[in-house]
Amino acid sequence: MLKVAIAGGTGYTGAELIRLLIRHPKVEITSVTSEQSAGESLVSRLPFLKGLCDLTLEKFDPDQLAKKADLIFSALSHTKAIASTRQWIDAGKKVIDLSADYRLQGDGVYEKWYGTAHTEPDLLKKAVYGLPEIYRHKIATAGTGPCLIANPGCYPTSALLPLYPFLKSREVNTTREIIIDAKSGVSGAGRAATDKTHFSEVNEGLVAYNIGIHRHIPEIEQEVSLFGGTVIFTPYLLPVNRGILTTIYLPLKRALSQAQLETILEEQYKGEPFIRRVNAPPNLAHIKGSNYCDIAVFATIKGNTAILMSAIDNLVKGASGQAIQNMNILMGWDEQEGLRSPGFFP
Amino acid sequence: MLKVAIAGGTGYTGAELIRLLIRHPKVEITSVTSEQSAGESLVSRLPFLKGLCDLTLEKFDPDQLAKKADLIFSALSHTKAIASTRQWIDAGKKVIDLSADYRLQGDGVYEKWYGTAHTEPDLLKKAVYGLPEIYRHKIATAGTGPCLIANPGCYPTSALLPLYPFLKSREVNTTREIIIDAKSGVSGAGRAATDKTHFSEVNEGLVAYNIGIHRHIPEIEQEVSLFGGTVIFTPYLLPVNRGILTTIYLPLKRALSQAQLETILEEQYKGEPFIRRVNAPPNLAHIKGSNYCDIAVFATIKGNTAILMSAIDNLVKGASGQAIQNMNILMGWDEQEGLRSPGFFP
Amino acid sequence: MLKVAIAGGTGYTGAELIRLLIRHPKVEITSVTSEQSAGESLVSRLPFLKGLCDLTLEKFDPDQLAKKADLIFSALSHTKAIASTRQWIDAGKKVIDLSADYRLQGDGVYEKWYGTAHTEPDLLKKAVYGLPEIYRHKIATAGTGPCLIANPGCYPTSALLPLYPFLKSREVNTTREIIIDAKSGVSGAGRAATDKTHFSEVNEGLVAYNIGIHRHIPEIEQEVSLFGGTVIFTPYLLPVNRGILTTIYLPLKRALSQAQLETILEEQYKGEPFIRRVNAPPNLAHIKGSNYCDIAVFATIKGNTAILMSAIDNLVKGASGQAIQNMNILMGWDEQEGLRSPGFFP
Amino acid sequence: MLKVAIAGGTGYTGAELIRLLIRHPKVEITSVTSEQSAGESLVSRLPFLKGLCDLTLEKFDPDQLAKKADLIFSALSHTKAIASTRQWIDAGKKVIDLSADYRLQGDGVYEKWYGTAHTEPDLLKKAVYGLPEIYRHKIATAGTGPCLIANPGCYPTSALLPLYPFLKSREVNTTREIIIDAKSGVSGAGRAATDKTHFSEVNEGLVAYNIGIHRHIPEIEQEVSLFGGTVIFTPYLLPVNRGILTTIYLPLKRALSQAQLETILEEQYKGEPFIRRVNAPPNLAHIKGSNYCDIAVFATIKGNTAILMSAIDNLVKGASGQAIQNMNILMGWDEQEGLRSPGFFP
Repeated sequence: MLKVAIAGGTGYTGAELIRLLIRHPKVEITSVTSEQSAGESLVSRLPFLKGLCDLTLEKFDPDQLAKKADLIFSALSHTKAIASTRQWIDAGKKVIDLSADYRLQGDGVYEKWYGTAHTEPDLLKKAVYGLPEIYRHKIATAGTGPCLIANPGCYPTSALLPLYPFLKSREVNTTREIIIDAKSGVSGAGRAATDKTHFSEVNEGLVAYNIGIHRHIPEIEQEVSLFGGTVIFTPYLLPVNRGILTTIYLPLKRALSQAQLETILEEQYKGEPFIRRVNAPPNLAHIKGSNYCDIAVFATIKGNTAILMSAIDNLVKGASGQAIQNMNILMGWDEQEGLRSPGFFP
Repeated sequence: MLKVAIAGGTGYTGAELIRLLIRHPKVEITSVTSEQSAGESLVSRLPFLKGLCDLTLEKFDPDQLAKKADLIFSALSHTKAIASTRQWIDAGKKVIDLSADYRLQGDGVYEKWYGTAHTEPDLLKKAVYGLPEIYRHKIATAGTGPCLIANPGCYPTSALLPLYPFLKSREVNTTREIIIDAKSGVSGAGRAATDKTHFSEVNEGLVAYNIGIHRHIPEIEQEVSLFGGTVIFTPYLLPVNRGILTTIYLPLKRALSQAQLETILEEQYKGEPFIRRVNAPPNLAHIKGSNYCDIAVFATIKGNTAILMSAIDNLVKGASGQAIQNMNILMGWDEQEGLRSPGFFP
Repeated sequence: MLKVAIAGGTGYTGAELIRLLIRHPKVEITSVTSEQSAGESLVSRLPFLKGLCDLTLEKFDPDQLAKKADLIFSALSHTKAIASTRQWIDAGKKVIDLSADYRLQGDGVYEKWYGTAHTEPDLLKKAVYGLPEIYRHKIATAGTGPCLIANPGCYPTSALLPLYPFLKSREVNTTREIIIDAKSGVSGAGRAATDKTHFSEVNEGLVAYNIGIHRHIPEIEQEVSLFGGTVIFTPYLLPVNRGILTTIYLPLKRALSQAQLETILEEQYKGEPFIRRVNAPPNLAHIKGSNYCDIAVFATIKGNTAILMSAIDNLVKGASGQAIQNMNILMGWDEQEGLRSPGFFP
Repeated sequence: MLKVAIAGGTGYTGAELIRLLIRHPKVEITSVTSEQSAGESLVSRLPFLKGLCDLTLEKFDPDQLAKKADLIFSALSHTKAIASTRQWIDAGKKVIDLSADYRLQGDGVYEKWYGTAHTEPDLLKKAVYGLPEIYRHKIATAGTGPCLIANPGCYPTSALLPLYPFLKSREVNTTREIIIDAKSGVSGAGRAATDKTHFSEVNEGLVAYNIGIHRHIPEIEQEVSLFGGTVIFTPYLLPVNRGILTTIYLPLKRALSQAQLETILEEQYKGEPFIRRVNAPPNLAHIKGSNYCDIAVFATIKGNTAILMSAIDNLVKGASGQAIQNMNILMGWDEQEGLRSPGFFP
């Protein structure tokens, strides 16, 4: 049994990690930390786990975590675990970081978007971007020793998975922006109460936010720019608990038929365990609680713009499920271990 | 035009007062205060009112309010305006207090439930409990001079309106507790963000809270005890924005038929403008945004327990609409002035 | 008092017409029809109106409606009132048709999208498209005699109002498609129960539908094509009761700054009573129940694409409120009569 | 591997059976029937299962089911499988019936509540009521041969589990009615679209229904009457997908303290795998997707009435999870097999 620890276990991504890891047959959770509730039972903060997990929440202590675990999921908010991650790597551990701290590789990009210089630039360079459908080989290779996986953000996952086959196909017209219109459930904003996530403010509403300034823009562009592309990204706060539905208006170099578009998708993703190609528009109702990314593509009349749609659960494929998928790859296990179960419907 | 001011205008009850008063033909809002946003436009905090109200939010200053208005709606949180209310009354104003500060008349009751001694016990004694369907005459009489109306709480309104005809009928078996099971929308918890009202915690959930210790218990019991009754009160947080649906299991001295029960209700409330007797169970969907209290009564097989149900909008009949109804009575106006409009459906 | 009748009064647009007309000082509702519930009280089907409207629902009889009313709101489903409308016009009435029957002017367009030839092509030609912010003068002129207003669809209203100033400015690059991504609350799908609008299927979901084949596409294109533009239109079913939030990605001929974009909007809509230009992204939560259309525009980094956003209540500005606005213009009344009230929040 | 079939697999309880059985290590689903969609892929009706189940839906044919499976879950609507159940039993199969057909044992009770005489009265007598926490031994004994388990209704499960320890304790005052106030999510009403479950009618509403005439009343009373008790039962339609929160006002023979009440609960349910005794009021948000029944008890001031609260997922412990629990007992397997996983939060 692999010993794993979770730094920051009572937020939504931490809770989802525990929910999924409890069923994982090759893993034992040895430690869960909480900034606010150290010393209390985990169940006091996550009552849905009563009867399934009797851990006591611990103060965040990087040394202790390194002693107790061989793999650490870091689910703290950004900047909080930059230094600790260095410690863990030096101690020979594997680290999967669910924050944005080790995702942005460009010089000064982290500082520009997070307002503070990155204090571990060398380690940053070594981090592997943990999008298995694109970087599976790099992840697996990293897993042979101590390593750091930068687990992708929820919006970038929802955007890059449908985009990647088309970017790779070189059919995208990169002189025009790729338009990404992405609607996210409220758990994506975290568990801390804010004015913007107060029930009566969100319920029966819909609103875009952070137009042009959302911190997931540089993460998306880091990948898209490898193919010469640029993006316009519009995120929305949607009155549901879970899920991101992303629609992409993709400029093409030439008109492509529905069949041609589907072929591009199929060729890239045939056999991928967590990509489901669907013919109807994907629905958030069908991916809640699962690690699937449902993807559809639609041709338009003129044909020079394709419409891509993806649906993921922001807490699973957009965070904790993908982190476990990365762990499975790192460890050389079946990639679907612990993730094979369906979501819930309705 | 009567000049009115609103102390605490950017919470949900304040916003609802403004929404309703804007349409009131005999009233002009001269001042709205905000603890957090003084100096900003009202619309910056309440964008739904853009184009309808161009006031600037003011710092709370009781003297200024007294200068600017003849009637003051106090929608501050409890204890905040106890002293100011005294000032306003001394300055000859009419005050309608939407907080709980002047509702609890019994010796020491306020202190017991709010943890601090009441600093204006004399004024407290003079306050009139503003439930028009029961105390219309007292309210109207008070309105001939400076006066203080203690506007009822939302739960007490939803419970006392259906209960009153039966208590008055002397058919209630007061040796058993009256059971009040009351489900409230989230706006009843106020506009301040809290862990308990975070969207993802409330949505797709339902939970009771403050069993046996909710501060509306003494307010309900103050009225029920006039008839010798006692209550068990269970409030719930319901994942909707507005509305309280209250079910009351009422012990009777003898078996009463459906017709007998309906007659009791009808005799008390015939002609009441804001009480709607309904035959089917009342639905929150039918009272949202209106000042109506829908009430139904159902006999049971044995007949010794009646089931009463009421539906109100906690922000209208449970707070701001009722406050305006009280103002209309105080001023000798048509009681329905500004309140005649339907709610919204769906 | 103008006598008005509503054909099809128990659907959501019919209910909203009644809700709004009850408060309209110059109108008397003389007849409301219902296909399923003729002979029953209106309140039996619309309990939220209890105490406010004591009409009995009538069988749909075009002759009777013409006798009872001078203006008829036709809120029947498409094709149901094509012939009756001709009758009403011949009888000298004014008709405001909330269906799609008299909106599509092009030869064969109606047949193409609705699967049946239009049986009143001459009358169709005379119908005025009732978008007051664009066609106010034509509507007012029509009102001098018997006339037919084709009240716009909800999606077209939400798209055309933000688009119009930019189309008119001739800054739009019409060689690229205008992308319209529009999220609608469930009341837009009507009141009849369907598998797709079953609560548990919609709640906690989000899904696009009718991509490329939605019947509002030809209506939008009819106006956009006047300026040489074409559109890609993606509608979504959103788990809220009311509201359409529409985002438009608008290709421009040249880079425009934020200030330039705002000026275009301001110049067109200055003084418009129901257009609110907002700086933050519009939120469905702020327009529920009101006749407002909130519009914002955002420049992008490259500047060759503008992002437009609008929020309307599909049942008010997207249907019944706009119908009343049209009535006010037809009658030469204050355009805001009966529509001046705020929506509800939260 | 046990071969199991599901009659009626595309409703919500059928879907939930499949969701849970997919993960069950000792079971193979060999056949799923659908009245409307026979011949189509299961995934066409349940897209959330794509990639996890490649069955084709079959026409309901009792003979075929008996050939293909050793245990049959019957999730058809009531009356539809009464005769087939007899056939299956005669063929030596085990049957777990999720409908109400074999639950009501009293003479004429089924006919009274379902409007048609029961056509298999002999088999009805042999059916075992499948509430494991009460009838575990009878279920296990039945499992030694062909047998019929009448899987309890969702409301009865939510009411009987908290009630049973207190009824058994003989502390209940049976001269007064036990009051059961039970709020259910919409999936409890099934997957067929109806006017009452249309999204816009349910969302932002709350309403009681079938007061005094709900078909779960005789099922609850069948058990309660064994202890001399009678009930008043009020069900509500709650705007959430899943879950039943039931509050019971329990008349006691004498005042009992909080500690005494908790002891009664603890003594009965110590070691029960799916009963979680909680101190705070149970919350629907904490049991979604799991087979747990969370139960709390609260003393009141006078003490002669106890407040019991339970939370279950109506589709899991209230239907399909409990059916699998029954299967596990019948087969002599670990009762938690396939049910050990947490629900989802949020």
